[in-house]
Amino acid sequence: MTKTAGELAAAIGAKLQGDHSFEVRGVAAPERAGAHDLIYVEAAKHAARAAASAAACVIAGESLVIGGKTVLRHAQPKIAFAKAAAIMLERGPISAGIHATAIVAPLAGIGKDVGIGPYAVIGEDAHIGDGTQIGAHCVIGAGCWIGESCRIHPHVTLYARARIGNRVEIHAGTVIGADGFGYVYGDGRYWKFPQVGIVQIADDVEIGANATIDRGSLDDTRIADGVKLDNLVHVGHNVQIGEHTVIAAQTGISGSSSVGHHVFIGGQVGIADHCTLEDGAIAGAQAGIPTGKTIRAGQTVWGTPAREIGKFKEAYAWYARLPDLGARIKEIESRIASKKNVKSSPRAQKSARGRKRK
Amino acid sequence: MTKTAGELAAAIGAKLQGDHSFEVRGVAAPERAGAHDLIYVEAAKHAARAAASAAACVIAGESLVIGGKTVLRHAQPKIAFAKAAAIMLERGPISAGIHATAIVAPLAGIGKDVGIGPYAVIGEDAHIGDGTQIGAHCVIGAGCWIGESCRIHPHVTLYARARIGNRVEIHAGTVIGADGFGYVYGDGRYWKFPQVGIVQIADDVEIGANATIDRGSLDDTRIADGVKLDNLVHVGHNVQIGEHTVIAAQTGISGSSSVGHHVFIGGQVGIADHCTLEDGAIAGAQAGIPTGKTIRAGQTVWGTPAREIGKFKEAYAWYARLPDLGARIKEIESRIASKKNVKSSPRAQKSARGRKRK
Amino acid sequence: MTKTAGELAAAIGAKLQGDHSFEVRGVAAPERAGAHDLIYVEAAKHAARAAASAAACVIAGESLVIGGKTVLRHAQPKIAFAKAAAIMLERGPISAGIHATAIVAPLAGIGKDVGIGPYAVIGEDAHIGDGTQIGAHCVIGAGCWIGESCRIHPHVTLYARARIGNRVEIHAGTVIGADGFGYVYGDGRYWKFPQVGIVQIADDVEIGANATIDRGSLDDTRIADGVKLDNLVHVGHNVQIGEHTVIAAQTGISGSSSVGHHVFIGGQVGIADHCTLEDGAIAGAQAGIPTGKTIRAGQTVWGTPAREIGKFKEAYAWYARLPDLGARIKEIESRIASKKNVKSSPRAQKSARGRKRK
Repeated sequence: MTKTAGELAAAIGAKLQGDHSFEVRGVAAPERAGAHDLIYVEAAKHAARAAASAAACVIAGESLVIGGKTVLRHAQPKIAFAKAAAIMLERGPISAGIHATAIVAPLAGIGKDVGIGPYAVIGEDAHIGDGTQIGAHCVIGAGCWIGESCRIHPHVTLYARARIGNRVEIHAGTVIGADGFGYVYGDGRYWKFPQVGIVQIADDVEIGANATIDRGSLDDTRIADGVKLDNLVHVGHNVQIGEHTVIAAQTGISGSSSVGHHVFIGGQVGIADHCTLEDGAIAGAQAGIPTGKTIRAGQTVWGTPAREIGKFKEAYAWYARLPDLGARIKEIESRIASKKNVKSSPRAQKSARGRKRK
Repeated sequence: MTKTAGELAAAIGAKLQGDHSFEVRGVAAPERAGAHDLIYVEAAKHAARAAASAAACVIAGESLVIGGKTVLRHAQPKIAFAKAAAIMLERGPISAGIHATAIVAPLAGIGKDVGIGPYAVIGEDAHIGDGTQIGAHCVIGAGCWIGESCRIHPHVTLYARARIGNRVEIHAGTVIGADGFGYVYGDGRYWKFPQVGIVQIADDVEIGANATIDRGSLDDTRIADGVKLDNLVHVGHNVQIGEHTVIAAQTGISGSSSVGHHVFIGGQVGIADHCTLEDGAIAGAQAGIPTGKTIRAGQTVWGTPAREIGKFKEAYAWYARLPDLGARIKEIESRIASKKNVKSSPRAQKSARGRKRK
Repeated sequence: MTKTAGELAAAIGAKLQGDHSFEVRGVAAPERAGAHDLIYVEAAKHAARAAASAAACVIAGESLVIGGKTVLRHAQPKIAFAKAAAIMLERGPISAGIHATAIVAPLAGIGKDVGIGPYAVIGEDAHIGDGTQIGAHCVIGAGCWIGESCRIHPHVTLYARARIGNRVEIHAGTVIGADGFGYVYGDGRYWKFPQVGIVQIADDVEIGANATIDRGSLDDTRIADGVKLDNLVHVGHNVQIGEHTVIAAQTGISGSSSVGHHVFIGGQVGIADHCTLEDGAIAGAQAGIPTGKTIRAGQTVWGTPAREIGKFKEAYAWYARLPDLGARIKEIESRIASKKNVKSSPRAQKSARGRKRK
């Protein structure tokens, strides 16, 4: 799509300095941009990259000096660039129209302008909202409800009765609504606990590739507006995730845990069952949060088992100095012993023997 | 399915108090139950939830007092509930009959009452046992053998010659029998080691979504009766897993490791190659078990590298107190120094210099 | 395929002792081998296994004594065996010819001897090189370029414009080119950052099952010659991976990190964004490398946050001895106190009180 610099400035709320009628045709990094690509520069240290770019139009902060370019001034250049890109870039269609090989059950309800790709299978009583695109090979189970303007990439599986809001994007290979991992042990074997809840996903959620979100057992699994989940994330049964929470790749959340809104969870974090992460909490990459634990609102944690990050880092710094601490203790002990003015207590003898055995 | 309370009590071995002829039509959590849903209550502290429920029929322990309901008394209410749910809930069919678009190789052997969903592909010489259901889009490789009454959800891939027992459930997106990760390094590059073994899965196994179980290299990969694997679990080549072992989400087991029966492995555990977890061992979430290590029967371990859990917790508690230990050592040193009655040894001077450099 | 021992010896550069005309028909482990299977023995301690095998032909080191067999002598028996296996084993075809149900866009370019399996979907302007096999149900996006002699297993998804070299093998369920995980936070929500780069994969790469490799945001994601990625590996946007680097299962690499050539990364390693692993570096299983960190060429690291492995192990050994260190400090303190010749300083009193509170 082509926009003039003036149109873009108006759309993203930027102040324009330069040629209002300059045609912007794409977005790029400074080094890869052509003359008509839009670029952005956030920090003064990157001004030279922008200045050297072939791009003639740049989004920049309010005071940055960039000669010879049309500049869109904005207090937050990266957000302004993201918004401009959303306007400029026509996202490739996942599917257009209903492909002849798609199998749509007779009682499925298909909205207007829906795209359904080759070999997709839409189950009985499923609902697909206006403008939603379903990729090739998707399997949408019976009774699923999908809102408007969603983008479901190829090879996504929705088990029966999943509910998806509007403007939700789900990347390839993701599985939504498989049975939760619930068993009861008895008589030497495991008995499957019923997994009859559903998955409910609200609006503006994006889910990466090959992720898994299990259906509830007797309750439901719920993901609120604006949540972003990266690739290979696992969400267990009955988990609740609040608005605008972000979870990086390969993190797993076990059954019945509750995550607040605006929480930030790094990659490969493990959250055991029945945990609570309150609003605005942050869990550093690879943190491990044990069963039933609560992370307080706004608190940042790291490590396994997870601790407040300042305490984790302080202990970790000491951890690195353990060999030195050990040497110092030995030194003190040898001085005391060399003075021969204190008799060994039975406790100290035992301790010394214990050390030698190791 | 509808059952009377009396029929259910007989089926699960419970003692009935109340209306034998009361019709039970489903199962639910107390708060979501309708009058004809069965609920259960395990601990006395949840008795009020059960009492307040609209459900008229409840499974409870032998002494719990719950007024005004038909009660099924059982020593283990949760197991009894799971068994009742298995009777009550008709599991949605994955597929019924052989869909016109399914591609079944001419020499494949298909049992009685088999369901094969749309676009599924069944390879040459594959065998599908009686009553097994294969979901839409599954790809069953040549020479695979699948037993009776299995449930294979959509988008599952079985590479050639995998062998699956009876009553096995495999969730969507799981890949069984891909090549193991085996290479030999030489001449500056990696040479693929042959991966010509198979995968053998016994009876009553359940495998979550998007899991991967690799074929053996020169041996086979084997999973015994009753094993339960959660989503995104990785099982490497030649791995052996014993009966009724449970492995939570995102855990990985590297090549040639052996896991006993009734082992419990938490989420995100990493087991390196050639490890042994003996019968009844427990590995806590995110534990890391280094190459060749043995975890003894019944032992519980945690941490990376994994240690006996009591020792891990004791060391971790001290870890949290390291800043305090450091301060105490410094205090002792300063007292000794202030007494000026012990001359610094060369060792102590070196140690002090070392600390200053940091 | 059948080869004589003499032909195999010539092909792999081994010195033959025994029957040149002996027919080798397969490869196996010693215990499972038939008479005509080739086996290998690397260490002297395994010589008895080889001697007891039914196999009549064995690859062995230059000095190992094995009676009664035809022996192919080679300085590196395991590499020689891998090379022999590559000659002996005809890899099962993934697909042969273009299946009638495959949907190939009119402007896609299909080379000679290409196999495309049932229900595969090949997008507009895609290129499939000579001899490449595409499995059932693969979805190859518009504008993708795939080289010669590749093996793409079932259920693989390539988003638009991915570029794959020659002799690349991609296992089932893997997703290449999904959007990277990039957002900008503002106005209480996350704005999607453009993900318009591509994925470039060079020659002789092998990628395991259910892995995910994201497209670049404004740059590209690049994987160089000979790289081997295991199952469920995650590669973020803009990541660069150098030649002959090996990455084990469930490892994740966040956006814009750079990995050199001949790097070895264990399973479940987490590499945060903007890290650098220089050539020949080694990261132990479950290591965690924090944002922006550099691992020097040839360095081996372990732990979270990752440290040089010698230091990690030394500190970890002390970690296990923390209870003992604590007891020794307490012992020293009680001796000093019992001497009553040093007055408690305010600092020491505070420290003692702090301990009691815990």
